[in-house]
Amino acid sequence: MNSLDYGERSVLIHQQLRGKIGVMNKMPVGNRDDLSIAYTPGVAKPCEVIAQDVSQARKLTLKSNSVAVVSDGSAVLGLGNIGSHASIPVMEGKALLFKEFANIDAWPICIDTQDTESIINTVRLIAPVFGGVNLEDISAPRCFEVENRLQGLGIPVFHDDQHGTAIVMLAALINSCRALGKDIRDLTIVVNGAGAAGTAIARLLRCVGQEDDRCEPVKEVIVCDSRGAIHGDRENLSPEKKALLAYANRQNRQGSLREVLKEADVFIGVSVGGILDSDDIKLMAEEPVILAMANPIPEIMPDEARRGGAAIIGTGRSDFPNQVNNVLVFPGIFRGALDANASQITEAMKIAAAFALADCVENPVPEKILPDPLDKSVAPKVANAVREASLKAQ
Amino acid sequence: MNSLDYGERSVLIHQQLRGKIGVMNKMPVGNRDDLSIAYTPGVAKPCEVIAQDVSQARKLTLKSNSVAVVSDGSAVLGLGNIGSHASIPVMEGKALLFKEFANIDAWPICIDTQDTESIINTVRLIAPVFGGVNLEDISAPRCFEVENRLQGLGIPVFHDDQHGTAIVMLAALINSCRALGKDIRDLTIVVNGAGAAGTAIARLLRCVGQEDDRCEPVKEVIVCDSRGAIHGDRENLSPEKKALLAYANRQNRQGSLREVLKEADVFIGVSVGGILDSDDIKLMAEEPVILAMANPIPEIMPDEARRGGAAIIGTGRSDFPNQVNNVLVFPGIFRGALDANASQITEAMKIAAAFALADCVENPVPEKILPDPLDKSVAPKVANAVREASLKAQ
Repeated sequence: MNSLDYGERSVLIHQQLRGKIGVMNKMPVGNRDDLSIAYTPGVAKPCEVIAQDVSQARKLTLKSNSVAVVSDGSAVLGLGNIGSHASIPVMEGKALLFKEFANIDAWPICIDTQDTESIINTVRLIAPVFGGVNLEDISAPRCFEVENRLQGLGIPVFHDDQHGTAIVMLAALINSCRALGKDIRDLTIVVNGAGAAGTAIARLLRCVGQEDDRCEPVKEVIVCDSRGAIHGDRENLSPEKKALLAYANRQNRQGSLREVLKEADVFIGVSVGGILDSDDIKLMAEEPVILAMANPIPEIMPDEARRGGAAIIGTGRSDFPNQVNNVLVFPGIFRGALDANASQITEAMKIAAAFALADCVENPVPEKILPDPLDKSVAPKVANAVREASLKAQ
Repeated sequence: MNSLDYGERSVLIHQQLRGKIGVMNKMPVGNRDDLSIAYTPGVAKPCEVIAQDVSQARKLTLKSNSVAVVSDGSAVLGLGNIGSHASIPVMEGKALLFKEFANIDAWPICIDTQDTESIINTVRLIAPVFGGVNLEDISAPRCFEVENRLQGLGIPVFHDDQHGTAIVMLAALINSCRALGKDIRDLTIVVNGAGAAGTAIARLLRCVGQEDDRCEPVKEVIVCDSRGAIHGDRENLSPEKKALLAYANRQNRQGSLREVLKEADVFIGVSVGGILDSDDIKLMAEEPVILAMANPIPEIMPDEARRGGAAIIGTGRSDFPNQVNNVLVFPGIFRGALDANASQITEAMKIAAAFALADCVENPVPEKILPDPLDKSVAPKVANAVREASLKAQ
C-alpha cells in the first residue's frame, strides 16, 4: 500500500473506517441501576439543575469539553468551494486532531448553505451542546462576518484559518528574530494573499485591538493581492481590504509584489505556488525570512529561496524544515479556553499562545524555529498560557 | 452512595463525568504518514470523491454510522418545557444508549429555539454529517409538523416519542394476544393521551399508511384527551385531533374515559399517573390488557389493576414486570435503517420492528410479554428485520 500516493491511501483508509472518529461511552449501561442514573428516572435531576441555572450545563454535560468544527465547504484546503458534504473528511480530520492533541471532543458540523445569515443562525441555534466553535474553511469575506457576529455567543468562536495561521506565523517570527538576533519591532513584512489568513496575520502582527505588555507591533506590514500592494489610492477596494489600511501599509507603498519586496525583512505567502524566484529574494533586506505557505507547492521552493539569500525558510510541508502547521495552535487554544471557561478567544489569548508556542523551541536556529507538528508536549504548554491569559482578564 | 436516590446519584455522576459520551479516534496520529492520510495532503482525495458523487459521503465518512439526537427541550421526560440546555443530559443519555445497544455514533443536538420553522431549517442545514435524525422530546403538535416536513431529507428522520412508543406498544399487544389466545384484529383499544405517543399508537394499531401482509388493523381505537373520547361531534378539535378521526373511533363513541372503557379489551395510558382504579378495570371486557405508561406513577398501579381483573399489566417502570421501554426499539430501528442505507423509516419497517421485538420472547406469558430492556440480543434482531423490510422495498 505504501506504493500508492497519500491521496489513494487516504481513500482506502476512509473506506475502511467509514468515519475517522466515533462516539465513546464514558459510563457502562450494564444493569438497571446504570440505566436509572444515566437515563430515566435519575437524569431528571441534572436536567432540573440546569433548568434552574443554565451555566451548570458546563459542569454536568459534554458541553464542558466539546467543540463544533463548523464549515460550509466553501474554501476547503486547496480544493475551493466543494460544498458541505465533500468537506466532511477534512472536518473529521480536524476533530481527530482535537482529540489526539488536546483530548477535546470535537464534532464536525458541515452546514448545507453558504448564506452568511443562515450559517450564523445555525451556529447560534446548535450552540447549547458545544463549549466552543472552530470555524473552518469558510471563504472570505463571509468568514469575517460569520466570526464577528458570533462573538457574543457566550462560548469561544474561532476561525482557525485566520487566527490559527496568524498565531503560528507570529511564533515563527518571534523565533526567527531570536535565531537571527533581530528585533520584531524593526521588521517590515510583506504578506501575499489578502484572504482570511493574510488579513488575520496583518492584524496580529500590528497588534490590532490588543494590549498585551509583550505585544509590540512590527514596523510595517504590506498586504498584497493579485494586483499588488493594497494601498489607499487603489480604486474599488473591497470593504475588507479598505479596513486593512487602518493598520497595514501606513507608508502607502504602491506597486507589484516584486516592487514592495524591496528591502522587506520578511515574506509571508498565503497565496499560490511558484510565484517568486531567487532574484526576488535578492531584492529583500539582509537575512530575509521566507514563510511560504502555499500547498502543496510553496510560493518559492526552499532551495530557490536559499539561492536568493534567505536566512530562514518555512513552508507548510512536512518534508522541509520549519513546517508551519495550525495543529501547533488550535488544540492548545481551545484546551486553554475550555479550561478557563472562557466566553471568547481574546487577542491577549492569541498573543499568549504565540509566545508559548515560540518558547517550545529552546534554542531557535534557522533550521528550527518551530516545534514538530507531532510534538504532543506543545498543546499543553499553549493551553496553559491561553488559560492563564483568559483567567487574568476574567 | 447507594443510600442516595437516583436523582442525587445522577447529579454526582454527571458532575464527575462532565459528559456521558465523548469522541473516540478510530485511527492513530502518531507520525507524519498518519497525518498526511487523515489530514493534509491526503484527505483532499476523499473530499474530491465526494464532491463528484455526494452519495460517497456514506461510504467514506462518519455519516455511515451517525445519528443526531435532536431536541428543543420543549417536552422533556415528565419535566415539560425546560429548554434546550436543560435537555442535554437526556439527549446525551439517548446517545449513550445508541452506542451501547447498537454501536451507533449519536450526537446530541439541542436546538435553542422552539419555532417550528427554525427547527426544521436547522436540522436540514446540519444534516450532511448525519446518517439519521432521532427527534426527541419535542412537544405536540409541533413534533408532527417537524417530522413530516423532514421526511424528504434523504436520511431517516424518526420521532421516537411517537413511533418508538407505538412500536413497543404494538409488540406488547402482539404478545399479549399470544399469551391470552386472542386475535389482535378483535381488539377494541382505548388510548388515553392524544399527544405525540397517543397519536402514533392509534395510527400504527390501525395500520395507517401501511401495506404489510402481516398488518391487520385492530378493530377499534378510541383516543381520549382530558375531555374524554375524541369524536366527530366535539367542537373546537385541533387539526391533529380531527385527523385522528379518519382512523380512530369510527363508531363515534362519546363520553368520558371511564365511559368508553366499557367492554374495551385494552387500555393504553400515555397520560398522567393515578387516574384509574380497580372499578374502572372491572368495566372492561374479559381479561383486559393494561399498558399504563405514565412515569413515575402509572395511570393505575399493577396491584390495583389486578384487583380489577387485569390479565396483563405493563408499565414504564423497571420495578414491575413487563417494562415498556423505547430502548427496546430505537437502537435496532436506526441500526437497521443505517445498514440498509435507508432514506426513510417506513410503516413497513416499523411493523417489522414490532414483530421482531415480539418474537424476542419465545413463549409470551402474562408476566412476560416483552424482553428485558437491558437484553442486548434484542437490538440486532430488530435491526435485521428493519434492514430486510427496507431492502425489500428499495
